[in-house]
Amino acid sequence: MSAAAGTLLDARSSQAARREHILDAAEACFVRNGFHRTTMQDLAREAAMSPGNFYRYFQSKEALVLGLAERERQRGMALVEAMERAGDRHGALIGIIERYFLAITRETAILRVDIWSEATRNPDIAAMVTRGEAEARAWFVETLAALATGPGRDAAALYEAMNPLMKGIIVNRAVADDYDPAPAVAHLLALIETGLAGRPIDR
Amino acid sequence: MSAAAGTLLDARSSQAARREHILDAAEACFVRNGFHRTTMQDLAREAAMSPGNFYRYFQSKEALVLGLAERERQRGMALVEAMERAGDRHGALIGIIERYFLAITRETAILRVDIWSEATRNPDIAAMVTRGEAEARAWFVETLAALATGPGRDAAALYEAMNPLMKGIIVNRAVADDYDPAPAVAHLLALIETGLAGRPIDR
Repeated sequence: MSAAAGTLLDARSSQAARREHILDAAEACFVRNGFHRTTMQDLAREAAMSPGNFYRYFQSKEALVLGLAERERQRGMALVEAMERAGDRHGALIGIIERYFLAITRETAILRVDIWSEATRNPDIAAMVTRGEAEARAWFVETLAALATGPGRDAAALYEAMNPLMKGIIVNRAVADDYDPAPAVAHLLALIETGLAGRPIDR
Repeated sequence: MSAAAGTLLDARSSQAARREHILDAAEACFVRNGFHRTTMQDLAREAAMSPGNFYRYFQSKEALVLGLAERERQRGMALVEAMERAGDRHGALIGIIERYFLAITRETAILRVDIWSEATRNPDIAAMVTRGEAEARAWFVETLAALATGPGRDAAALYEAMNPLMKGIIVNRAVADDYDPAPAVAHLLALIETGLAGRPIDR
């Protein structure tokens, strides 16, 4: 590698690290004070950057919310790929659900509820939520369809039953500091096994 | 009734009607613009009142959110009482769930998601949400316990399974304008029947 290319790579990785740092700071700020009470000045201060430097990375609060959601999406995809590489697709599905819903921090859950709230009024955030929902649905339905063993299996219907349950676990995690998601996660996993085995989930 | 008492009653009912009118205006405003972007001036304007007159009824945005939540709670209790008076407790339970979750407007759902979001930061609203949750849990667990027919029935566990599903339906209703809650409500009712019959809901 030429020295120039090395320097360019260093600059890129330092810029990526700075972006990560800003996103961490923004997440902490939004969770603590909410989207609306947070100003760009607050965000720059939390990231220990000058406002001018901060604006070079993100030009608006919306851009930061979109950046946070994109990071969550990429982390989810990395988790899915890592578990799928391990070979056992059924184990990967269960592992991803357990890992996400049992370990979800209150901060992540609060940010998610805020994003839903904001999506009802902000078209850019609504579009991002719709895109994320469609991706999640596509992955789950494909995975469920591949894993189903029973007759009359309907991966799309199973996902429709799982979807609100997963959202409700996140709401409960956000709202109550002492919420224990374990019983609801057990119910979610049981619902999946019932659906995959082709037993009716609706009666 | 004396003329004075009649006048007092008229004044009270006119004041109650004014309160209702303000709550309707506040609900419309909060749903359209969100809690944080709405000012007391906006709320007075929406209610077609002078700020001074408006403040005689509600002194803060928090007071209006609490007023809206209290109204929702009283409406819920009135619905429960009306259906329980009709005699059939099982029918009342199913009827209340169908009526609430199939007919919930997008506006009501958005306000509910906003209240959850706000509860993560505002102690008064958090306390109100906790109180509402406890009342709902107590009513559902008592009703489920009275209706359960199967062995091994566990009304509390059944409610814990229903609770996130109900919240997730509200989130979906708020976020997607074209959301159809019917499949999720069918799943919720099936879960209740399974639980009441004492069949395991967790495997």
